[in-house]
Amino acid sequence: MQRGHLMSPTVAFETWGTLNSAADNAVLIFTGLSPSAHAASSALDPAAGWWEDMIGPGKPLDSERYFIICINSLGSCFGSTGAASINPDTEKPYRLSFPVLTVEDIANSACHVLDRLGIAQLHTVVGASMGGMTALALALNHTSRCRRLVSISSAARALPHAIALRSLQREIIRRDPLWQQGQYDAKGDGPVTGMRLARKLGMISYRSGEEWADRFGRERAPDSVEQDSPFGIDFEVESYLESHANRFIGSFDANCYLYLSRAMDLFDGLDHGGSLAASFSDLQLQSALVIGVRTDALFPLSQQQELADALAESVADVHFVPLDSVQGHDSFLVDMDRFRPAIAAYF
Amino acid sequence: MQRGHLMSPTVAFETWGTLNSAADNAVLIFTGLSPSAHAASSALDPAAGWWEDMIGPGKPLDSERYFIICINSLGSCFGSTGAASINPDTEKPYRLSFPVLTVEDIANSACHVLDRLGIAQLHTVVGASMGGMTALALALNHTSRCRRLVSISSAARALPHAIALRSLQREIIRRDPLWQQGQYDAKGDGPVTGMRLARKLGMISYRSGEEWADRFGRERAPDSVEQDSPFGIDFEVESYLESHANRFIGSFDANCYLYLSRAMDLFDGLDHGGSLAASFSDLQLQSALVIGVRTDALFPLSQQQELADALAESVADVHFVPLDSVQGHDSFLVDMDRFRPAIAAYF
Repeated sequence: MQRGHLMSPTVAFETWGTLNSAADNAVLIFTGLSPSAHAASSALDPAAGWWEDMIGPGKPLDSERYFIICINSLGSCFGSTGAASINPDTEKPYRLSFPVLTVEDIANSACHVLDRLGIAQLHTVVGASMGGMTALALALNHTSRCRRLVSISSAARALPHAIALRSLQREIIRRDPLWQQGQYDAKGDGPVTGMRLARKLGMISYRSGEEWADRFGRERAPDSVEQDSPFGIDFEVESYLESHANRFIGSFDANCYLYLSRAMDLFDGLDHGGSLAASFSDLQLQSALVIGVRTDALFPLSQQQELADALAESVADVHFVPLDSVQGHDSFLVDMDRFRPAIAAYF
Repeated sequence: MQRGHLMSPTVAFETWGTLNSAADNAVLIFTGLSPSAHAASSALDPAAGWWEDMIGPGKPLDSERYFIICINSLGSCFGSTGAASINPDTEKPYRLSFPVLTVEDIANSACHVLDRLGIAQLHTVVGASMGGMTALALALNHTSRCRRLVSISSAARALPHAIALRSLQREIIRRDPLWQQGQYDAKGDGPVTGMRLARKLGMISYRSGEEWADRFGRERAPDSVEQDSPFGIDFEVESYLESHANRFIGSFDANCYLYLSRAMDLFDGLDHGGSLAASFSDLQLQSALVIGVRTDALFPLSQQQELADALAESVADVHFVPLDSVQGHDSFLVDMDRFRPAIAAYF
């Protein structure tokens, strides 16, 4: 794989609260693969954000105490430079000429944002899912940048089951004839079928069988659900996946998805040493919080335990909080009754 | 969904051993979705079968004691009538004019085979995966036909997680432009890409993350692996899926796959009553063996426990054997060290 470089990329971000005079109350949030930097509503954008219940005055990430920053990952398509952005050299979209993207690149790009904001050291870096990998990459590669780490439903490295799922999602997109080796018209539909199917596979890996057994059981879809084909929708769970897939379409660029998805597979927290503990030996964190969920099939709880154990070799104060949420990997987005207290307690 | 009927369908089967004069030593095996009736080698076909280590003289299914029959499921494409077969009325393949197929249809068709062979009552009916559902359907709908039931890595009903996975496999096939609403040329390639991707998703659901973590870890694929595209194969686990997908192509008809896959979703052992135990109250089994595997993500162990518990309400002698195999749902095909003794002990 050839690495490359970008000339003056843009990194989009949003903030809540105020940086104090010591510039030591900044909390940086890295997102999962698909969210934008709009984690919560604000005066500038009153629409609800993807972590609305977590961020704001009096909330677990309290904007009256902290200056909270959320980054749109480099490589994404919500304001930051990615494969769908215009290459200033050619005045055309990068598409597949965008260089190989790594989680470390996303972390590095965030440091430039911190420099611009005058923040030498973060109070805490927070990340869930891919964002947890990015937060760890920041702590590993910019050791003086953060005092505390919060890793949620993430992992120190991708295991083959997760790689297989993401690889298949990427191949489903690539095999859509409308992907056209990445040269689809960004203003047209692009590989809509591939993106829909990849999103369905994503949802299957993000939620849990236990949740769906309780929620859908063997309930049949209403007759009103459109039957576009023989072998179409029979069950409510199929109708649920269909509506999630339809909502995803048009909101995310396919090439950006490919780059970010592969970045997760490539990330390996072991790159700094022969074991996780050795790789973490240069960390300068004061404390860390690792949260995982029992029903997470994509980033299984054993990986959170492994991460917490390895952090504990170098970090004085490590909290491992396994939660009993039933919503699988997505629990941090929906099971606020469990996640809010867990995060509030740490802050 | 419209039911239909077939005029004189063919049901392919193979046998091992000899039916005794009392005709009471017959063991019937129903297969999972994709195998043929060739479960083991024989004088007529010396090629190794899909359960070669399980069937034969002195093996757990001992052909010196039992007359063993394996059925190619109705709706499949290895000799039994299915969507790829010629409709005698039109002299063209059924394709999507093949009627809706249920697991009960497969069980019913097997009864005609038993009639021809002069077998009023089976010593034991055995089934793994979809075959376990078929075996249960036989026991429920033809109560006098079997004295013993062996259900392996199966379930009394499909849960929404498994339905979602199979539904997505079917949609991946249907969205392949070469599927052509089922009208692809059976002699041509058909929806090869859809079948390859569906097979990869199948393999992800058939094996376990635990097995792959041990077996592949983060090993990279050798450089010799063909890179047909950007975002192609980086990791060994991707190479493994690729080779499995390639082996599947050409061996299974796409429409047959759709029919059999949906039959599994439609099966519901609760159809005979308001609870599993009530549904099972008419069973005339003397005993049953239920085997499940801890790492099975498609038919989780909790479903085997549920099946065994419900059977125990009506059947005097029920054995529940949870195995610690790491190969997930596929363990019954590969973990012979655990499965052979478990099955031998029952027989």
